[in-house]
Amino acid sequence: MVDVAIIGAGQTKYGNHQLGMKGMWAEAANNAFDSVDKDFHAKQIDEAFIGSVAFGGGQLGNTAALLTEHSGMQGKPVRRVENACASSGFALRDAWMAIKSGQADVVVAGGIEKMNDLTPERKRFWLGVSGDTEWERLAGLTFPGTYALMARRYFHEFDSSHDDLVHISVKNHYHGLENSVAHIRKDVSFDKAKSGFMVADPLTLYDCCPTSDGASCVILAADHVVKQFTDDPVWINSSAAASDYLALHDRPSITQLIATQMAAKKAYSMAGITANDIDLAEVHDCFTIAELLATEDLGFANRGEGGLFSREGRGRRNEGVTCVNPSGGLKSKGHPLGATGTGQTVEIFKQLRGEVEPVRQVRDAEVALSHNVGGSGATCAVHVYGRDRT
Amino acid sequence: MVDVAIIGAGQTKYGNHQLGMKGMWAEAANNAFDSVDKDFHAKQIDEAFIGSVAFGGGQLGNTAALLTEHSGMQGKPVRRVENACASSGFALRDAWMAIKSGQADVVVAGGIEKMNDLTPERKRFWLGVSGDTEWERLAGLTFPGTYALMARRYFHEFDSSHDDLVHISVKNHYHGLENSVAHIRKDVSFDKAKSGFMVADPLTLYDCCPTSDGASCVILAADHVVKQFTDDPVWINSSAAASDYLALHDRPSITQLIATQMAAKKAYSMAGITANDIDLAEVHDCFTIAELLATEDLGFANRGEGGLFSREGRGRRNEGVTCVNPSGGLKSKGHPLGATGTGQTVEIFKQLRGEVEPVRQVRDAEVALSHNVGGSGATCAVHVYGRDRT
Repeated sequence: MVDVAIIGAGQTKYGNHQLGMKGMWAEAANNAFDSVDKDFHAKQIDEAFIGSVAFGGGQLGNTAALLTEHSGMQGKPVRRVENACASSGFALRDAWMAIKSGQADVVVAGGIEKMNDLTPERKRFWLGVSGDTEWERLAGLTFPGTYALMARRYFHEFDSSHDDLVHISVKNHYHGLENSVAHIRKDVSFDKAKSGFMVADPLTLYDCCPTSDGASCVILAADHVVKQFTDDPVWINSSAAASDYLALHDRPSITQLIATQMAAKKAYSMAGITANDIDLAEVHDCFTIAELLATEDLGFANRGEGGLFSREGRGRRNEGVTCVNPSGGLKSKGHPLGATGTGQTVEIFKQLRGEVEPVRQVRDAEVALSHNVGGSGATCAVHVYGRDRT
Repeated sequence: MVDVAIIGAGQTKYGNHQLGMKGMWAEAANNAFDSVDKDFHAKQIDEAFIGSVAFGGGQLGNTAALLTEHSGMQGKPVRRVENACASSGFALRDAWMAIKSGQADVVVAGGIEKMNDLTPERKRFWLGVSGDTEWERLAGLTFPGTYALMARRYFHEFDSSHDDLVHISVKNHYHGLENSVAHIRKDVSFDKAKSGFMVADPLTLYDCCPTSDGASCVILAADHVVKQFTDDPVWINSSAAASDYLALHDRPSITQLIATQMAAKKAYSMAGITANDIDLAEVHDCFTIAELLATEDLGFANRGEGGLFSREGRGRRNEGVTCVNPSGGLKSKGHPLGATGTGQTVEIFKQLRGEVEPVRQVRDAEVALSHNVGGSGATCAVHVYGRDRT
């Protein structure tokens, strides 16, 4: 079976962009192309998968073809992959499988979202449509409310309080402070995060990620062509994914994401590792409670001890055990929905190659994980990366 | 390398459905499950790819997770694939690659669209967004106009007239007349089709496919598990795809679809056949001119002789050379955008197994092709099927 490596990765800054979709995609793709160590040209790409929830930007259908023609890839087989906020995590998985299938040697996975040209009302609509429409959105339940329900229930079931979420917010803002592509670069104190404007009780503004514009792009290659492009690849040692009921009320528990647990279990098994082997993880913290639950679902903390993991600072860069969200996560780096999954991969590629800002570098990082979630957990993709292939 | 077979296929009737998206998908999926010759259960599915342009139906994001939970597939890795009207042609390709990758043995590819609960204005909007938004849709050019430009240019460049398109309309209505799942089952005479209500000169109502609701679902399996499910599989001997500039004005010629030509060339080469070997083809006739161009781009007719191919009835069932659109095509069977690609595969599965209505059966059919186009040719997927694997 063919092994798959990342040979290049690039993205735009996340935030409020003046560029339209085409320009943002071209910037991310060109950054990825330029990051390849040896000669590389878009014509060498065999196939492309682009994640997007497709709001804003105006081009709601056939988006992938339009974007790829703006990055020198016209003619190639391309498609858009949509799984809400996990769109490009699945684009990455599908690109990885395309190489493993023997049908392609060099494949692009990317993502894009253009949100900030929408009115607040339209933005709320397009964010809401990834939750269950009939049972949640039309009843008035949007994502802050969904995750607030999960947080309240978690505090009820386990020894935890909002303070544990505040620690996550503070950590992620600290991690993202020197990240040049991050949307929100602010030194946020515990007191400030704790007393933020209430969004959906118990979640304050500092528990919620921003809505960002952004694009990200990674280039994957089959083992037999990797050396043509770089002597310093990052290997994707496993890809796993799962789904769950879309509406919260259908799930037996709302304090764990079964899709994350299933995907993580498979990803560890395929890569031949355990959660303890992960040096750094880019985790889907659309809300701080989502990161807390993920630390348990991914096995970094025992069930019910995600609060403790947070309180003890076990996810802090070069202080804790497993660095969680070295990029700043969705909270600080930002969350351009369709771009978030492969954006996590861009961070991991640069971290494992020692190419991020020196102050942000996770020391001795060899093994990494990305965790990308759609909606409130209906879809999830987990990937394990290594300096070595396993 | 693993070979890939179809072991089951089902769909809803195409037309104006009372069912919502969930019910339509469940019906198509259950029809596919029931069509498997030996014991089969949804739990045996490893992964799923569902094509949809996502208009109507209310659930615009995370659609795939919602649909799969309504067909007993909850928990499985699923995603929505979007490439305008070629969405499920690409879902099929991605499912095929997933099996070839060795990551999955049983994979579902399907598609769905719910259009007829939209107001005419919203329907026009959601149809238009798959053309180029900036250069075409916002200038007032919708798809009937786009294809009318292609037809006018074709008549200017070659020995052809609107009569050649009328023959295509008449043939497809004839083929679809006894198709129990077809949207428009009418015996249409040459004179009636020729004098239809003008939509976009030279295209009349009889040159344009209807907008349909519908869902389709096919089940693919790896060669080493096929016998567990059926002794009568249909093999997908090749899958190929390509893209092109989204806007017409960027292309060197508007009387050929380069994406079709590229995909067809690769598909024939991979299957080890030529166009002459194809017994029947399900071709993307969103407009009659699209079928005329496809007969050339796919190599059934020489360049400039698509009109002659039509006039001479060479695409007619059991009278011509290669039966083109035995189902009735998009014109008669209908066009529920995201469902169309895998809907073509359902027809081919049943034709090659001798399971369609007897009057519709293409005699001695061994090798078939499906051709699914997004927009006015920005994306295209071509698959070659056979009773034997090559």
